[in-house]
Amino acid sequence: MNDGYYTLKGYDMLEKKEITYAMEDYLEMIYRLCKANESARISELSRYLNVKPSSATKMVKNLKECGLVEFERYGHISLTPYGRDKGEYYIYRHNVLNKLFMAINKSRSELETVEKIEHFINEETVRNIELFLEKIPL
Amino acid sequence: MNDGYYTLKGYDMLEKKEITYAMEDYLEMIYRLCKANESARISELSRYLNVKPSSATKMVKNLKECGLVEFERYGHISLTPYGRDKGEYYIYRHNVLNKLFMAINKSRSELETVEKIEHFINEETVRNIELFLEKIPL
Repeated sequence: MNDGYYTLKGYDMLEKKEITYAMEDYLEMIYRLCKANESARISELSRYLNVKPSSATKMVKNLKECGLVEFERYGHISLTPYGRDKGEYYIYRHNVLNKLFMAINKSRSELETVEKIEHFINEETVRNIELFLEKIPL
Repeated sequence: MNDGYYTLKGYDMLEKKEITYAMEDYLEMIYRLCKANESARISELSRYLNVKPSSATKMVKNLKECGLVEFERYGHISLTPYGRDKGEYYIYRHNVLNKLFMAINKSRSELETVEKIEHFINEETVRNIELFLEKIPL
């Protein structure tokens, strides 16, 4: 036992991330929608994420302030190159974790578990899970 | 893409868990301390979890209300049988997840990752990770 333990809130406070977990969720979904239709709309975003349109609008403004999306009022949301990079990584991270937990649970999807934990898995671990999955017999 | 996506906050609100993630963190640590010394004290708990003694006191009162610990003011914290059961499970879950991520990252400990994600991994998945680890060559 050592002094390295924190509560989940304690870890959050330690990190002071510029991109919050909620912003990651939104950017991941915007990336999915943009891939399908070039741009995304607040109405789609709020429907797919089960949030109110007003919450989606607020969050998209935060994403714009971080330079991740372009957004015109009542208009379309599109990704900046920085936002596209991040979105691509979040989808990759999502898919790698989904594969891992599908292998563990012998299931066809692990959406709920993955959506909950993906924010907390660092990039090195994601890359290592990918290598790990290549080596084990599935 | 379907309607099954929620933000992390959305999942939290859906579940309305009686035992919160913070309570899990505290109970896990109380279990560790009680295993070493029969009972735990607020001062130790706050030191090991890097929280203020006032926060620890508040949380221990919540744990008492849920029937997980016995606690006398300025006194010792001890586990009820229900609390011991839960604590034992949290440690087991912690250790299983630590083994998984140690195997993935070829590391000696994955404390930070595990402390962050353990709350979100359901019991069936924990049991399956244990079986999974038995089968793969480490």
